Amino acid sequence: ERTGHPEVIFGLGKTADQTEAIFARLVEVHGRALVTRASPETAERITARFPEAVYDAPSRLIRYGSPRRSFKGTVMVVSGGTSDLPVAEEAAGTAEWMGCRVDRIYDVGVAGIDRLLAHRERIREAHVVIAVAGMEGALPSVVGGMVRRPVIAVPTSVGYGANLQGVTTLLAMLTSCASGLTVVNIDNGFGAAYHAAMILQLVAEADA
Amino acid sequence: ERTGHPEVIFGLGKTADQTEAIFARLVEVHGRALVTRASPETAERITARFPEAVYDAPSRLIRYGSPRRSFKGTVMVVSGGTSDLPVAEEAAGTAEWMGCRVDRIYDVGVAGIDRLLAHRERIREAHVVIAVAGMEGALPSVVGGMVRRPVIAVPTSVGYGANLQGVTTLLAMLTSCASGLTVVNIDNGFGAAYHAAMILQLVAEADA
Amino acid sequence: ERTGHPEVIFGLGKTADQTEAIFARLVEVHGRALVTRASPETAERITARFPEAVYDAPSRLIRYGSPRRSFKGTVMVVSGGTSDLPVAEEAAGTAEWMGCRVDRIYDVGVAGIDRLLAHRERIREAHVVIAVAGMEGALPSVVGGMVRRPVIAVPTSVGYGANLQGVTTLLAMLTSCASGLTVVNIDNGFGAAYHAAMILQLVAEADA
Amino acid sequence: ERTGHPEVIFGLGKTADQTEAIFARLVEVHGRALVTRASPETAERITARFPEAVYDAPSRLIRYGSPRRSFKGTVMVVSGGTSDLPVAEEAAGTAEWMGCRVDRIYDVGVAGIDRLLAHRERIREAHVVIAVAGMEGALPSVVGGMVRRPVIAVPTSVGYGANLQGVTTLLAMLTSCASGLTVVNIDNGFGAAYHAAMILQLVAEADA
Amino acid sequence: ERTGHPEVIFGLGKTADQTEAIFARLVEVHGRALVTRASPETAERITARFPEAVYDAPSRLIRYGSPRRSFKGTVMVVSGGTSDLPVAEEAAGTAEWMGCRVDRIYDVGVAGIDRLLAHRERIREAHVVIAVAGMEGALPSVVGGMVRRPVIAVPTSVGYGANLQGVTTLLAMLTSCASGLTVVNIDNGFGAAYHAAMILQLVAEADA
Amino acid sequence: ERTGHPEVIFGLGKTADQTEAIFARLVEVHGRALVTRASPETAERITARFPEAVYDAPSRLIRYGSPRRSFKGTVMVVSGGTSDLPVAEEAAGTAEWMGCRVDRIYDVGVAGIDRLLAHRERIREAHVVIAVAGMEGALPSVVGGMVRRPVIAVPTSVGYGANLQGVTTLLAMLTSCASGLTVVNIDNGFGAAYHAAMILQLVAEADA
Amino acid sequence: ERTGHPEVIFGLGKTADQTEAIFARLVEVHGRALVTRASPETAERITARFPEAVYDAPSRLIRYGSPRRSFKGTVMVVSGGTSDLPVAEEAAGTAEWMGCRVDRIYDVGVAGIDRLLAHRERIREAHVVIAVAGMEGALPSVVGGMVRRPVIAVPTSVGYGANLQGVTTLLAMLTSCASGLTVVNIDNGFGAAYHAAMILQLVAEADA
Amino acid sequence: ERTGHPEVIFGLGKTADQTEAIFARLVEVHGRALVTRASPETAERITARFPEAVYDAPSRLIRYGSPRRSFKGTVMVVSGGTSDLPVAEEAAGTAEWMGCRVDRIYDVGVAGIDRLLAHRERIREAHVVIAVAGMEGALPSVVGGMVRRPVIAVPTSVGYGANLQGVTTLLAMLTSCASGLTVVNIDNGFGAAYHAAMILQLVAEADA
Ligand SMILES: Nc1ncnc2c1ncn2[C@@H]1O[C@H](COP(=O)(O)O)[C@@H](O)[C@H]1O
Ligand SMILES: Nc1ncnc2c1ncn2[C@@H]1O[C@H](COP(=O)(O)O)[C@@H](O)[C@H]1O
Ligand SMILES: Nc1ncnc2c1ncn2[C@@H]1O[C@H](COP(=O)(O)O)[C@@H](O)[C@H]1O
Ligand SMILES: Nc1ncnc2c1ncn2[C@@H]1O[C@H](COP(=O)(O)O)[C@@H](O)[C@H]1O
Ligand SMILES: [Mg+2]
Ligand SMILES: [Mg+2]
Ligand SMILES: [Mg+2]
Ligand SMILES: [Mg+2]
Ligand SMILES: [Mg+2]
Ligand SMILES: [Mg+2]
Ligand SMILES: [Mg+2]
Ligand SMILES: [Mg+2]
Repeated sequence: ERTGHPEVIFGLGKTADQTEAIFARLVEVHGRALVTRASPETAERITARFPEAVYDAPSRLIRYGSPRRSFKGTVMVVSGGTSDLPVAEEAAGTAEWMGCRVDRIYDVGVAGIDRLLAHRERIREAHVVIAVAGMEGALPSVVGGMVRRPVIAVPTSVGYGANLQGVTTLLAMLTSCASGLTVVNIDNGFGAAYHAAMILQLVAEADA
Repeated sequence: ERTGHPEVIFGLGKTADQTEAIFARLVEVHGRALVTRASPETAERITARFPEAVYDAPSRLIRYGSPRRSFKGTVMVVSGGTSDLPVAEEAAGTAEWMGCRVDRIYDVGVAGIDRLLAHRERIREAHVVIAVAGMEGALPSVVGGMVRRPVIAVPTSVGYGANLQGVTTLLAMLTSCASGLTVVNIDNGFGAAYHAAMILQLVAEADA
Repeated sequence: ERTGHPEVIFGLGKTADQTEAIFARLVEVHGRALVTRASPETAERITARFPEAVYDAPSRLIRYGSPRRSFKGTVMVVSGGTSDLPVAEEAAGTAEWMGCRVDRIYDVGVAGIDRLLAHRERIREAHVVIAVAGMEGALPSVVGGMVRRPVIAVPTSVGYGANLQGVTTLLAMLTSCASGLTVVNIDNGFGAAYHAAMILQLVAEADA
Repeated sequence: ERTGHPEVIFGLGKTADQTEAIFARLVEVHGRALVTRASPETAERITARFPEAVYDAPSRLIRYGSPRRSFKGTVMVVSGGTSDLPVAEEAAGTAEWMGCRVDRIYDVGVAGIDRLLAHRERIREAHVVIAVAGMEGALPSVVGGMVRRPVIAVPTSVGYGANLQGVTTLLAMLTSCASGLTVVNIDNGFGAAYHAAMILQLVAEADA
Repeated sequence: ERTGHPEVIFGLGKTADQTEAIFARLVEVHGRALVTRASPETAERITARFPEAVYDAPSRLIRYGSPRRSFKGTVMVVSGGTSDLPVAEEAAGTAEWMGCRVDRIYDVGVAGIDRLLAHRERIREAHVVIAVAGMEGALPSVVGGMVRRPVIAVPTSVGYGANLQGVTTLLAMLTSCASGLTVVNIDNGFGAAYHAAMILQLVAEADA
Repeated sequence: ERTGHPEVIFGLGKTADQTEAIFARLVEVHGRALVTRASPETAERITARFPEAVYDAPSRLIRYGSPRRSFKGTVMVVSGGTSDLPVAEEAAGTAEWMGCRVDRIYDVGVAGIDRLLAHRERIREAHVVIAVAGMEGALPSVVGGMVRRPVIAVPTSVGYGANLQGVTTLLAMLTSCASGLTVVNIDNGFGAAYHAAMILQLVAEADA
Repeated sequence: ERTGHPEVIFGLGKTADQTEAIFARLVEVHGRALVTRASPETAERITARFPEAVYDAPSRLIRYGSPRRSFKGTVMVVSGGTSDLPVAEEAAGTAEWMGCRVDRIYDVGVAGIDRLLAHRERIREAHVVIAVAGMEGALPSVVGGMVRRPVIAVPTSVGYGANLQGVTTLLAMLTSCASGLTVVNIDNGFGAAYHAAMILQLVAEADA
Repeated sequence: ERTGHPEVIFGLGKTADQTEAIFARLVEVHGRALVTRASPETAERITARFPEAVYDAPSRLIRYGSPRRSFKGTVMVVSGGTSDLPVAEEAAGTAEWMGCRVDRIYDVGVAGIDRLLAHRERIREAHVVIAVAGMEGALPSVVGGMVRRPVIAVPTSVGYGANLQGVTTLLAMLTSCASGLTVVNIDNGFGAAYHAAMILQLVAEADA
């Protein structure tokens, strides 16, 4: 509440029953609710009871209701490979639910640098950048070096072997040579979007 | 440059000669320079040649020149214990050098929660919060739950044994139960301040 | 036996057959038995044969018989999130089975500090406190700073990514800045309750 | 204060100046003070200014003043090898300073089980047991199986190679097969003693 | 062959087809074969075709044929908990298949030291001791301190949380304070038995 | 010898005496020698006795004699930051001593992608590329995506905190999204150069 | 493309639908395609639609089309145990698809050194050697000491316990005492083959 | 004592005073003593007071007195590189002090397999083999495949980067593909020799 947004339900490890109960209470009190990491079963249950609720399978988000206000400015979500899509969409969908306009540039991994460079101007125009990548996690470093805006790095658990389920990606991002990059937990698209929304909310309120 | 600030010199592992050379070039080109992790020897050398340069021993920062503009709003730096002071001051000094107004609340560890709560209102008034803590790294979680503003967590290498030179603190902050917290590398006060300054710069430029 | 309590059966990895056999022997010899981490199958088998045995699904405990004596004083079990409930209830149920009176305060995570503070007096009145938390594991530090009684921290495996299946929580609790906190293994509600019961048993016997 | 004892100064990483200043304040306010991990330099400084302060080189403790009350009952400190002595003495000295009577049994490692068994009765008579051990950390498991009292395990950083500076010892103690053992950080004799004193304080106050 | 024993088939990750093929070849060439970690399916297949082959479900061994010679002396297998049984039996069965006489003492964990001490003389009479334990892995240290014979420690993956799937047990055994203990991989009862058999073979051949 | 080059002396942990003795023998037998990680003391000793030996302080190499043949083609050494220079030069110097022509492009970190892109054509013309980088280790991924030649990645121990003395960099490079990258040990410029020289030697000999 | 080969599809974690779509596009554009880590389901789907596509179950490769050119020289794939076969075949199949002639020597683990030595001459005749091994990963060290050609080491995840899913094998290969060995990620036969093909392509093009 | 040998003094972390006191007591009681990891200072002190004591600088052993009996048979110590010498000599010297005849073959690393093979017969004649190696730790695997005798592997902390101070070597040896290898802690030449002596003692006593 302190932030102007109802608490978000972390769906993982909750039964459909538990999620439904919390969801119903949030809808009643706030007229809005968001579930992350929702299983198809939970989604079915919620959307059956709340027809306005929308489930997005790739991101596993259930969204309900509109934000109290729409923020000025854009959150850019860039990501490396197609396997990073669920996390990128968790970020994008959360930011939208919180009132942000979102721009997406996907599949621009650093091993094909020209694809990324082709979007340089569009990336520079965003107010906040969320860079999602797995494996060696280099994308945020390259993006960080391109913009004069806050950049948030999201490591994904995409990779195998020496990737250690994303721990390598996480640690690599934390030792990035790009100044001012901040990092969230592995696969935590939600957290990155929340931080981005706090920034746009500050802009909106400082602006008033 | 892309951000409107000259590159910052990371002093660790550089000789006084190397640092002096880069410093001189930055002063010439930008009229401003910042060194982090400067040794006393390097500081002596630089301040002897550049009398306007100021060395702050606790934070190990050498600052020179004024920011091009002063941002509206305040960066709050809170920290847990007295051993976290060097890192907190690296954050505070960097933010100031970049044009931010800084407010400091130190020695408010979570094991004495009342000391922290006494400052709740002052913390809520800041535009961006940097929370610096070692050991179990709980401070950012508590602070994160108090404010409607972006919070950046800085783990310090203060602790022993199971602390693993700050790695435990870092990982704990990354799994914080407070939404939207972002994290930087261990002892990286500089990086947190840079991210904070990017936020205030956005406020300033979006505001214009 | 040395402690005045029969050995407790660790149900994980034991077949229903194995557990039933040990259970029957304990009931015969001691008139009491406790199984932790019991699967529903095992529970069904035991309760079918021993109708007085009670299975509690959330905590996965099977309890049988009454403690030889009831200890004076209260064990307080506080926990952070709803996902920590199974572990908190393993602690609470074990303590009760051993003869302790238990008070429970759940869902008081540190990111919403006011919920926790609302119970401050009640927590201070307990004789021993068991603080159960996952993720960054900050709850025991805050609670530890509030009371003049022994506090036992129980890390849970609730979390993902940088949480490393609770290892981060465990290590964070071990480097807590609250004095005198002791820690048990991840998800080991049983162990914390056992230690708490040893304390109340000491009070009872020293008291005599 | 909440516990009836002034805050204890952790000497590691503090200058003689810093420690002296905090020490002087504690003496003034409480008439008592304790420094752990004090360097010889700091000790010299403090004892020069406060002649009543006592420095014990092996444990690196500086003690000043008497406890407000002496608790009934005994804290037993057992330890494995001679290299564990500094940690064992940190525990013993802290417990004494807090008002506990302490009994010591040192050099009773598990590879010579008869030496330990020779003291079985004396160990069983204690109210609380602190078991200090390095290397494989087996001592607390054996002791834990002998007594009907709370046992606190202290891993030490004694060992090399696969010992990983005590992390192996710590983790081994956390997975002990003795019920109800609790564990503190590596080399944290202070923390174990503090927990033990909280137990004896409870006995004393519950007793009143 | 170099050792006088045919190569042993490691069943894990091999299909019934693969195992059968290698088994048949070994039987043909050597008249003897041993499979470790055999699944029930593989066992069924092998025993159907080779009626003399014997499958032991707890140890997952399939044994076929008799050793060329029976060694003088006894291999003692001691183990801590009932969950360690499969590994202890892998050791015992392998040693027998190689020509050793085996003595077994199970369920003598260090937290109930008297059960272990009751067998002290019998353990001292063995020629080689294999000590199998999970959790904190203390058993080999205590046993090692009792005998004048080679002791081989086998860590098991029995435990949870801080046990790290047996890695903690393994590392603890490697830093044992008992002199001359050697260690094999986690759950590697086979390897310990092989080493023990090499010792008895040496005794036999040096003896001749 | 098998490769056509004398064994190279790894100077770390060898006394000046030891290194000198081996060096003298190599010079006598092969008329050539190379020492890596030579301390200034060792270098002084060697160059005093062998005036033709050349010590290069940044790379810590002592080189003596000329390669038997000069290979066709170029080894390109690119590196990220100035702190990576010693490792980059160990690679470059070793390659030269083995008969390779070397081209160097230093200080082209990925956070300033334009500096790197400015050299794209020159990099593509090389026969083999060695990419040296510390911190997040992204440089080899970007370079790998630019060329049709074998690329060898060298992680350096440049970084702090989450960098874990280069282990993070190493693991990140191993999970690179660029196809066909191979990796050597942390700071092992020598090994990368040796592999590169084996490639040019193959070209030369296959060519003949 | 930059390398003269179409991008290769990493099948793991892709649905049959996703893989089929990318496959169809690659076939259309390049007339060639390769899928690694293809599940049987995906293979069935692809081979039904593209009858010329060939699925090899052990290596999980789907190959389609012929290389633009066949390189001169041979890639030798040697491997340690039968469990390493899938990875060895991923390397061999990839190299063939890219235009390399491949020679295979399997089941030559270092614990039976004579089997390996029997092939010494054949191994020395290859242009590039890929050495695949699990467990302690010693094979590439021994092979590396035999040849005057580039050697690429591939660690496999074959092993248990202390093997840590191949991480031990990986790290062991990176600290090999054989000069000039380079290493790829765990189980990454594809990557090793790609590097080998880049070497033969260089030979071919430098040769022209 | 239980083994027929006085306890051995581990010199690391003991002052010259402490070591001297224990040494004097052992000499008095047993007429024999052994110190491992003795510093030059300690050695000087001991040899000044006990002129018969012999200090060997490379192995850091101080030996005093003769074994009660000399065992039949030979302990072979083989090692990989010259840097492994201190550990190999700790093993050799300890074995001699305990009554074993020792044969040494040093500098036979697996990357030059012929040097090792040249000694194959001599190695096969030993009764027990101790194989000492750093880096990838492959030597014991190759040796283990050559002999019909017990083999003990000693990992050394020789290596850098991915070697992780010998932890990689240790884990690699534990997952060796040679049957029946047992392993001791990193750099623990003493422990390997003790195990070897227990074997020869068994041979001697079983023989009698
Ligand atoms: N204290 C610091 N911690 C982390 N990064 C820093 C710090 N100070 C400077 N940097 C970064 O390091 C870069 C300069 O690195 P270098 O080229 O080694 O001087 C700067 O542009 C910053 O991005
Ligand atoms: N949930 C639990 N976590 C840790 N230890 C337990 C648990 N439940 C029982 N135990 C311990 O495990 C012992 C029994 O182990 P077992 O012989 O395997 O049944 C008991 O005496 C307890 O010490
Ligand atoms: N900088 C280096 N990093 C890794 N390995 C090296 C290095 N320099 C030399 N070597 C290797 O170490 C071997 C010599 O080791 P040593 O016998 O200890 O001198 C050489 O043949 C090389 O294989
Ligand atoms: N088995 C493999 N292991 C590692 N990388 C692979 C493998 N197969 C394909 N790749 C790489 O993954 C890229 C395709 O990734 P994706 O876009 O996820 O299909 C290819 O261009 C290769 O660089
Ligand atoms: Mg990516
Ligand atoms: Mg703190
Ligand atoms: Mg919590
Ligand atoms: Mg000990
Ligand atoms: Mg056990
Ligand atoms: Mg770099
Ligand atoms: Mg192998
Ligand atoms: Mg070696």
